[in-house]
Amino acid sequence: MIYVIGIGPGSKEMMTLEAINAIENSEVIVGYKTYINLIHEFIKDKEVVQNGMRQEIDRCTEAVKIAKTGKNVAVISSGDAGIYGMAGLVLELVSKEEQKVEVKIVPGVTASIGAAAILGAPIMHDFCHISLSDLLTPWEVIEKRLKLAADADFVICLYNPRSKGRSEHLSKAFKIMSEFKDGKTPVGIVKDAGRENEEKFICTFDNMDFDRVDMTTMVIVGNKSTFIHEDLIITPRGYTV
Amino acid sequence: MIYVIGIGPGSKEMMTLEAINAIENSEVIVGYKTYINLIHEFIKDKEVVQNGMRQEIDRCTEAVKIAKTGKNVAVISSGDAGIYGMAGLVLELVSKEEQKVEVKIVPGVTASIGAAAILGAPIMHDFCHISLSDLLTPWEVIEKRLKLAADADFVICLYNPRSKGRSEHLSKAFKIMSEFKDGKTPVGIVKDAGRENEEKFICTFDNMDFDRVDMTTMVIVGNKSTFIHEDLIITPRGYTV
Repeated sequence: MIYVIGIGPGSKEMMTLEAINAIENSEVIVGYKTYINLIHEFIKDKEVVQNGMRQEIDRCTEAVKIAKTGKNVAVISSGDAGIYGMAGLVLELVSKEEQKVEVKIVPGVTASIGAAAILGAPIMHDFCHISLSDLLTPWEVIEKRLKLAADADFVICLYNPRSKGRSEHLSKAFKIMSEFKDGKTPVGIVKDAGRENEEKFICTFDNMDFDRVDMTTMVIVGNKSTFIHEDLIITPRGYTV
Repeated sequence: MIYVIGIGPGSKEMMTLEAINAIENSEVIVGYKTYINLIHEFIKDKEVVQNGMRQEIDRCTEAVKIAKTGKNVAVISSGDAGIYGMAGLVLELVSKEEQKVEVKIVPGVTASIGAAAILGAPIMHDFCHISLSDLLTPWEVIEKRLKLAADADFVICLYNPRSKGRSEHLSKAFKIMSEFKDGKTPVGIVKDAGRENEEKFICTFDNMDFDRVDMTTMVIVGNKSTFIHEDLIITPRGYTV
């Protein structure tokens, strides 16, 4: 059996009971080393297979191989395993196996939800997730989604917003969205949500500080109704209060 | 202090530790009666203020009033409190008070994430949430979002897809999306995710069975790469496997 587990943004408190139980039921834990560190207290006596970034296929292939020997394996994703996590890859790999391997996806709190709770209530109305990483998606597809999502007045959550190798993606994304997003639109930036170094920063679209953002940051751009109140961002659901 | 708590889709296992702790720390529990029933085991010795649907403003106003007396109050949402839940309303009400009332948003697993884990991995790539309820949003706004989201090739998660009062919204939504969504696009339907009567149904866009859907159902429409494998829906992240 493979449990594909979302452990939430980082703190133990944001894990679900099901995630904790699934880790406890597993004999082998597979994951990117940063995520393994986040759950160290649950895996003291377990076999651990960890490796670095961009080795997702190796990691999941190894998990499938171990599961075929009859062991329970936990594949760890941060946030939710089904949102830019390992759920799809594990299921794709298992679908190509002749031997039946059972897979259970264990849902978790994704980064946008964790960041939103820290910012106030920015995703109270229709929203979308767009990853700015073009490692696996053509940049033209990302550009089209940014433009149409801004035109649709979605609240927009940007995953993988900026890395050393693609420091310009985020500013390009803002340029595209600026056709439809007013300069006064609130923008929330949360770094390392739920982890030790958590940081929160609120600004407007026109005053966006791109240098605050790296790969472990979530950027949330409001819709036409979103407003800032003290240190919070609120997108009204539409109630008359 | 007001804790605005997302309890996840319905089962105790999908609650976070933080949600359970926040309920335990609260003297008064406020919520829609269906959600109160889902957490009955945690609130045995507590004061409960519950009422019916569409009484959100009364409920949250009451919570603010109780918090002002110095008590800890838990306001319960299903899923995540910040996604079509009570987080925004509570913060809006508190922002109008002269007396300072502390609010803590406790994130949870939203319905789309819970449903996705049951369906396989349908939201592995960029996706959006659109609520089909026009109680608080003009229908024209919803139509525009459906069209642009389909054009952008987002995976689309439909919240509040169908009620007795608006049984035609879902078929109208499919008509709008059909301009861009191919008839063979996989569609996942999950009713009462994580609850006793959980049901899962997978079909294609052209063969959508609208009668299976009610207010407690999540409908997830795939993107151009989404495929069905046995009883699962998988949207590839883009890895070559």
